Amino acid sequence: MITCSIVGATSYTAAELIRLLARHPHVKVGSLTSRSEEKILIHDLVPALPKDSDLQIEKLDLKKISQISDVVFLTLPHMCAMEVAGALLKAEKVVIDLSADFRLKDAGLYERWYARKHDHPELLAQAVYGLPEYYREQIRNACLIANPGCYPTGAILGISPLLKAGLIEPDSVIVDAKSGVSGAGRKLVPTTQYCEANENFSAYKVNAHQHMPEIEQILSDIAREKIGMTFVPHLLPVNRGILSTIYLKLKKGVGANRVAETFEAFSAREPFVRFLGAGKFPCLKNVQHTNFCDIGVKTDEGSNQVIVITAIDNLMKGASSQAIQNMNIRFGFDERTAIQ
Amino acid sequence: MITCSIVGATSYTAAELIRLLARHPHVKVGSLTSRSEEKILIHDLVPALPKDSDLQIEKLDLKKISQISDVVFLTLPHMCAMEVAGALLKAEKVVIDLSADFRLKDAGLYERWYARKHDHPELLAQAVYGLPEYYREQIRNACLIANPGCYPTGAILGISPLLKAGLIEPDSVIVDAKSGVSGAGRKLVPTTQYCEANENFSAYKVNAHQHMPEIEQILSDIAREKIGMTFVPHLLPVNRGILSTIYLKLKKGVGANRVAETFEAFSAREPFVRFLGAGKFPCLKNVQHTNFCDIGVKTDEGSNQVIVITAIDNLMKGASSQAIQNMNIRFGFDERTAIQ
Amino acid sequence: MITCSIVGATSYTAAELIRLLARHPHVKVGSLTSRSEEKILIHDLVPALPKDSDLQIEKLDLKKISQISDVVFLTLPHMCAMEVAGALLKAEKVVIDLSADFRLKDAGLYERWYARKHDHPELLAQAVYGLPEYYREQIRNACLIANPGCYPTGAILGISPLLKAGLIEPDSVIVDAKSGVSGAGRKLVPTTQYCEANENFSAYKVNAHQHMPEIEQILSDIAREKIGMTFVPHLLPVNRGILSTIYLKLKKGVGANRVAETFEAFSAREPFVRFLGAGKFPCLKNVQHTNFCDIGVKTDEGSNQVIVITAIDNLMKGASSQAIQNMNIRFGFDERTAIQ
Amino acid sequence: MITCSIVGATSYTAAELIRLLARHPHVKVGSLTSRSEEKILIHDLVPALPKDSDLQIEKLDLKKISQISDVVFLTLPHMCAMEVAGALLKAEKVVIDLSADFRLKDAGLYERWYARKHDHPELLAQAVYGLPEYYREQIRNACLIANPGCYPTGAILGISPLLKAGLIEPDSVIVDAKSGVSGAGRKLVPTTQYCEANENFSAYKVNAHQHMPEIEQILSDIAREKIGMTFVPHLLPVNRGILSTIYLKLKKGVGANRVAETFEAFSAREPFVRFLGAGKFPCLKNVQHTNFCDIGVKTDEGSNQVIVITAIDNLMKGASSQAIQNMNIRFGFDERTAIQ
Repeated sequence: MITCSIVGATSYTAAELIRLLARHPHVKVGSLTSRSEEKILIHDLVPALPKDSDLQIEKLDLKKISQISDVVFLTLPHMCAMEVAGALLKAEKVVIDLSADFRLKDAGLYERWYARKHDHPELLAQAVYGLPEYYREQIRNACLIANPGCYPTGAILGISPLLKAGLIEPDSVIVDAKSGVSGAGRKLVPTTQYCEANENFSAYKVNAHQHMPEIEQILSDIAREKIGMTFVPHLLPVNRGILSTIYLKLKKGVGANRVAETFEAFSAREPFVRFLGAGKFPCLKNVQHTNFCDIGVKTDEGSNQVIVITAIDNLMKGASSQAIQNMNIRFGFDERTAIQ
Repeated sequence: MITCSIVGATSYTAAELIRLLARHPHVKVGSLTSRSEEKILIHDLVPALPKDSDLQIEKLDLKKISQISDVVFLTLPHMCAMEVAGALLKAEKVVIDLSADFRLKDAGLYERWYARKHDHPELLAQAVYGLPEYYREQIRNACLIANPGCYPTGAILGISPLLKAGLIEPDSVIVDAKSGVSGAGRKLVPTTQYCEANENFSAYKVNAHQHMPEIEQILSDIAREKIGMTFVPHLLPVNRGILSTIYLKLKKGVGANRVAETFEAFSAREPFVRFLGAGKFPCLKNVQHTNFCDIGVKTDEGSNQVIVITAIDNLMKGASSQAIQNMNIRFGFDERTAIQ
Repeated sequence: MITCSIVGATSYTAAELIRLLARHPHVKVGSLTSRSEEKILIHDLVPALPKDSDLQIEKLDLKKISQISDVVFLTLPHMCAMEVAGALLKAEKVVIDLSADFRLKDAGLYERWYARKHDHPELLAQAVYGLPEYYREQIRNACLIANPGCYPTGAILGISPLLKAGLIEPDSVIVDAKSGVSGAGRKLVPTTQYCEANENFSAYKVNAHQHMPEIEQILSDIAREKIGMTFVPHLLPVNRGILSTIYLKLKKGVGANRVAETFEAFSAREPFVRFLGAGKFPCLKNVQHTNFCDIGVKTDEGSNQVIVITAIDNLMKGASSQAIQNMNIRFGFDERTAIQ
Repeated sequence: MITCSIVGATSYTAAELIRLLARHPHVKVGSLTSRSEEKILIHDLVPALPKDSDLQIEKLDLKKISQISDVVFLTLPHMCAMEVAGALLKAEKVVIDLSADFRLKDAGLYERWYARKHDHPELLAQAVYGLPEYYREQIRNACLIANPGCYPTGAILGISPLLKAGLIEPDSVIVDAKSGVSGAGRKLVPTTQYCEANENFSAYKVNAHQHMPEIEQILSDIAREKIGMTFVPHLLPVNRGILSTIYLKLKKGVGANRVAETFEAFSAREPFVRFLGAGKFPCLKNVQHTNFCDIGVKTDEGSNQVIVITAIDNLMKGASSQAIQNMNIRFGFDERTAIQ
């Protein structure tokens, strides 16, 4: 039995974490903290909790958290997490950060894409990217786990099997991604108002989204060569889910069978990846509220074009349930505990 | 040919007004003004305008507006309209106010429900309630037209025919109303965020909505006796439309035929009221983007209960197209011009 | 450890049952059957199941089901369940029927509202109405449990506490209910097509819905006097959830405190009823995917009107999770197992 | 003043046609016909029509239609239109066909993609593709106008300006398109049921949609060389609108300025094309219920990649209002009459 705490407990991702942890047999929730001045009732935040839950939202007290916790989840906005992580690491706590603060290895890249100097570049080297499908062994011993972004999770899981197998041209990556509105978090902005987002659809940050360098970094690491990409995210009028339609060029001579076999093997060894097989394509409905990443492919041998489509729940595999998957791996529990 | 201006041109209701006025053969738009500091492009506000429209959003200049306008629409928030209306009336302009500022005759009632003292109680007496179905003659000569609220329009048009005919018990009025999210306007509040309103439904201001005294005042005026009511508004996950389900007690001996005949006669003389007849009930889809109020009824003779259901578009008959209907009446145009 | 089977496994309610049962520690799923000719993959039906689930959809074989099952859930359409139930009861299986076939005690009433003669009126007497909040003791020994309808669950839980306490006038019950589209099941009809239901809202079967006699029967049983009602269901553009706005007349002298205390006591003794307290009202979002019934009230002492608002998930407390709650009670498990 | 008729008057596209024609000053509606056996009321089909409209839905009578009509719109399903068109052309009527039956020049290609032999291949040569932006002159004299498909309209208007100017590599065309559900028409299929499409998103007919050969044919005609493409359509949970995200490779040395100038010139000469300029991208909300095609672009000079995004309303510019635009051109009316 371990004890976890959550810093930043009023976000959508924290609410999912709390809900999932409530059914984890080996984890006790120690402290849930928020910077908000208002008194927040846990049942207003996570209505699905049992009536008799006695969880409470407290003011942040890093000393207390350090004393009682084995692992701390940070669900703070970008640029706030880095302030807290250092102290917790010094206290030898395992930190699982759901923000973007420790995903990029290059502090200069961080500054360019997040418009602020990184305060703790010395921590970047020790951060392990929390994508179990590629970094499971490093996660087992990590102190600081940088939980992947939602778009990167959907994109990388669709591209990396072919890339790792050397089947695609490295300069051909196009990702056309569509995300539900919860991806934008709780902050009040006009674009996520109901009357603006409902019955609407649009692209945003066209080829300029801050998740691009994250995807490129991980793809390059997997391919062991520099990978660039084209990336267009869109805002979808649903609460949750990301569907990524990925266009890749196969290397000469690579056929449809080889592509299918590659995904079949990947799916066979990964508990949360499902390759749907010939002629079947994923939909958001089938992954919502789950930790699954569903994958479908269509290969056109004539043009060497392969289309890979992936679907995840942005709050689950794209954030909170993946964070628990990482915790399970780190602490030696069955990887699927509480998330299936 | 008359000239109109709109003060408060960045609201949802103003955008509808601008769109409708663009096809009015007898009205020229003089000035569109906003208090916003930012430069706003008219095509961002009203994308459906022709490409060559040269309308512009300007800073408010009451003197200029007074010089060029025959009629001024105020689409300002409650409590802002009253400041502007006085000056325009002094300049002998016709004012059509879409806010709640001139709807209640009793300044004390205004203060109680809108939590602020009315600055111009002396203007309340001259304001005509802009519901053509009951106040058409007064509208023809009005200087200050208080355009009805969206909930009041849907409720009054369903109750008043039976009330005026003396068919219902005056103490039995229950209105269960459901409104699309645009009824809340553009301001950024958590309840109208996409992820809060979508796939959700709830009541709000239960028996405590500021439209209650407005409905009661008009019903009492029509019935010539004091009418009270129970009113529960709900937030519906659609952009636009209000459906009101109204529960009334018939006086003894009043049968289903009498009820139906009353609505048929009402529908026959009103260009924008449609009584659907036996066994047919309204839906939002059929009134969206129109000035129609659709009405269906079901009478249970055993229990003397009659159920009246009305549907309107809150931005149209509940606001902007009704404002144009009022203008048409006031200036002697065919009442239906530009709104059918 | 008991074994359950599900007859009619391709319905929305069956999919929820299968998903919930997969995490029940004391229940093994024996057989899932469908009348469909096509081969249906369990993961297409219940995508959230673990990848390694070996559940399969089979042809209906009553003999096999009788041999292996302790309890059988029937998720067949109305009028199909009655054919199957008799045989299973003869084989001394516990039957939990999610259709309407065994809810009404009066076969004549069934014929009038479901337009078909009841084939097994002799079974009606032994059927126990599966609303644990009122029939928990009978459920413990029942062979045939008639799982309540979705609208009745939401309506009865809001009305019955006041009715049982003798606080309301028995002839004053008005229920204005709004249901998500999944309440209509999977059959292809124009009204549940996306473009018809989306951005739309309407009443249907106005004061003529087949759930009315069911509600009246149970309310009359609880009140020990005949209760009639007015009932208007509406189709809400969300996937799941029912919100019921209920209008009742308090008996003279009954005040707001008494009403609140009654609901507080009800909530205190029921694991899945949550009374929200003064000034708080339920919303669908907070009950979706849960077995909770949330309740809010507003009392107007001046007019003796009390407004009760309840929210449930129509597929959960209104169907499948309530069926499991019934099974838990019947077989002596903790009532909350697998459903919280 | 001319007279038009509509054959197939119960489709979504016919309802839009009827609504738009009602405000056309130079066109009288002669006959509206349906193959349905039921009596259909025009106000149930087109609720926005004025109350006093006397339009009626009749049985198809080709002789009568030929006698009274100058132009006939066919809004029949694919493969039904071709049966009717021949007779009308023989009677020297102008036919505007909204089905796919006369869009492909090659009868063999039609057979391959629509799974049926074309009954009137002899008519294909005289059919003019009704995309005014490229075929305006031929439309002026056409007897048979093949109104473009919805996906082709959105795709071609985004690709063709660059293609015609010779700025892009001809083998690089990728179109990732997202369509609202009305694109699937009124037929009852599981995928367009509310609970399947709502809160969902998926690709379908991946690189295998019947609109592909249509797009390729027109692009090839404009480019005067053979153009192939990759095309993935998706089903978007909104009623109407298509957003197409298009990925193209610029020829070497072509810069961002050249791309922008090309679209500016296109937009300047076309009344219904709006190029949004640097950094602005289209959204469905701004084109719904209009005949506009909005276009945004982003050029990455480093990789020679250009991203073009277009938005149309599939029922308007993608069908009915484009059909009226074609009629206006054919009969010498101002091209914008009744559609702006």
